[in-house]
Amino acid sequence: MRAAIFRNGDMVVDTLPAPRPVAGQVLVKTICCGICGSDLHAAKYTKQFTDVSRRSGSRFVMDPARDVVMGHEFCCEVIDSVGDFKAGDIVTSIPATIVDREVHGLSYSNDFSAGYGEQMVLAERLLLRVPNGLSAEHAALTEPMAVGWHAVQKAQLTKDDVPVVIGCGPVGLAVIAALKIKGLHPIIAADFSAGRRALATKMGADIVVNPATQSPYKSWAEAATPAGFTGSRYAMMFESAPARRPGLIFECVGMPGLVQQVMGGAPVGARIVVVGVCMEADNFEPFFGIAKELNLQFVLGYTREEFADSLRHIAEGRIDVAPLITGKVGLDGVKQAFADLANPEMHAKILVEPWR
Amino acid sequence: MRAAIFRNGDMVVDTLPAPRPVAGQVLVKTICCGICGSDLHAAKYTKQFTDVSRRSGSRFVMDPARDVVMGHEFCCEVIDSVGDFKAGDIVTSIPATIVDREVHGLSYSNDFSAGYGEQMVLAERLLLRVPNGLSAEHAALTEPMAVGWHAVQKAQLTKDDVPVVIGCGPVGLAVIAALKIKGLHPIIAADFSAGRRALATKMGADIVVNPATQSPYKSWAEAATPAGFTGSRYAMMFESAPARRPGLIFECVGMPGLVQQVMGGAPVGARIVVVGVCMEADNFEPFFGIAKELNLQFVLGYTREEFADSLRHIAEGRIDVAPLITGKVGLDGVKQAFADLANPEMHAKILVEPWR
Repeated sequence: MRAAIFRNGDMVVDTLPAPRPVAGQVLVKTICCGICGSDLHAAKYTKQFTDVSRRSGSRFVMDPARDVVMGHEFCCEVIDSVGDFKAGDIVTSIPATIVDREVHGLSYSNDFSAGYGEQMVLAERLLLRVPNGLSAEHAALTEPMAVGWHAVQKAQLTKDDVPVVIGCGPVGLAVIAALKIKGLHPIIAADFSAGRRALATKMGADIVVNPATQSPYKSWAEAATPAGFTGSRYAMMFESAPARRPGLIFECVGMPGLVQQVMGGAPVGARIVVVGVCMEADNFEPFFGIAKELNLQFVLGYTREEFADSLRHIAEGRIDVAPLITGKVGLDGVKQAFADLANPEMHAKILVEPWR
Repeated sequence: MRAAIFRNGDMVVDTLPAPRPVAGQVLVKTICCGICGSDLHAAKYTKQFTDVSRRSGSRFVMDPARDVVMGHEFCCEVIDSVGDFKAGDIVTSIPATIVDREVHGLSYSNDFSAGYGEQMVLAERLLLRVPNGLSAEHAALTEPMAVGWHAVQKAQLTKDDVPVVIGCGPVGLAVIAALKIKGLHPIIAADFSAGRRALATKMGADIVVNPATQSPYKSWAEAATPAGFTGSRYAMMFESAPARRPGLIFECVGMPGLVQQVMGGAPVGARIVVVGVCMEADNFEPFFGIAKELNLQFVLGYTREEFADSLRHIAEGRIDVAPLITGKVGLDGVKQAFADLANPEMHAKILVEPWR
């Protein structure tokens, strides 16, 4: 089969042996597969990516001296019928496969090809059928939307929260979509890119700001402060004074300095959900967390149930993922797509169609 | 009145005008006042202390060019009767006073003398009567014990948590005492100092380790791992496999590098309560938090209710604070006590008796 292969630090197209399913596995054809920011990071900062993965005990451990076929946001067609799944069925799955009751991640593996190849072997137990009427390209967004849904589940929402989403790349947009499903308003979102801000509005943000000209924390304060709030410590201690609504900030950028920046802007008592995946060393001042009694919840991935929820959200129209898809490429276009995704005005999500 | 005054970067004893109560204030004599690590920090790293306090919006803002009388862990005797409080009553209070419905912190203020002076003006509304039979020196430990009680309240305990306390200075010991009251076992505690480890056992720790020879996280794993636990992802996904008990770590050291060290040692899904007060810039690797989905809850201080709880805990014998008191000094001894407290084998809590 043909695949876009990360080989010796470069992205090349070549032919590999087709994967062969073992018991419990299903051979599928990849219809389409989204490109994730983590893939860009793994390709560009490979040593850092594998080093921090290994030291932190994460499963993103690949040997860059050997071939890697990435791609973990896929929708597929069953090639050979197995169990309840018939040839031609359209399916998706969390990016993992199973061999002898061992779960193996797909995407940063030297042993299993993932979505940037024409074929994969998925686990029958993990397959989800894509409902009739849902296009494969929309179903491929199940995975990135699940990331936002999981982050919002981990946030332990209260009905009074006024959420602020910092960064409106695919992760931030998925968080906005999840908050909209939860019915929490107003949703405040911030991004330096006009294109991303337009997408934030489409996904459900109520107040969208350019942090170059307006502090998202000021927007939070305006939205969260009730009439009669004075901030008086005396009133808070001895009278039933009106209080501000709680601060809930989703850090969806994942670059060094962002955690401190959010801790600096966050109101007293805020919860910060760190969804952006920063793999670099970072600086921060713990006293900002201490003085404001902040809570930082780091999150990654999703559960199987949240992934299934995400597919239903898209299938049932609760999330319209169409605006997020800004490009499609064949295997020969993967390398250029990795470069193009650096421009937030130009792209949000590019899908790879390996059969093209 | 006489006071130990932080003046021009030094600790000197001098005479100051006695404070005069306004409406709602009560003039008290300080019977004793504990020395807190924050005071040492404020005296030694004054610029850093005031700078980060100001930038983070905290209330620890003093002008070091003017006199400061610190001391916020006090027990006092009422001098002039006010309202329900009669001359001779023994009282304590959160370290704050009130003027015209404005709350002012005591300890890092240029405007109000605190516990290292012979007299203070406290707020009638904030005074708590020390129950009969409780010594003033034990009542003075209400404040540091409240810090541990608050940290444990903010930890959102579950009955299955296996708590680990990193650092057994006064803050860590207060956390251990609070965990013991909550009935959570085993309590694991770690400190490099043999003296501090002995105190940890006295305060209620069940497993006490020297991190130079035994990892507290290994102790956690031994205590938290049930029979039949395999760590198999397959079993976790598809079978009701035995799970480890949750990790809950109290960071009670407050020095740079500790947050990363705890994030490195913490098990997957752990909650980390940051109780140690680090006021310096720090480094960390966010991906350790991300890969393990850690939660960091920063805490500071306590509520009025928690402070009152703490006084009851001591008065009713649920915490025996006697072992913590390792020295007493008059005003002339404050400067030397600040130096002596750097040695954890020698001291835990030194009380200042300004009337000596």
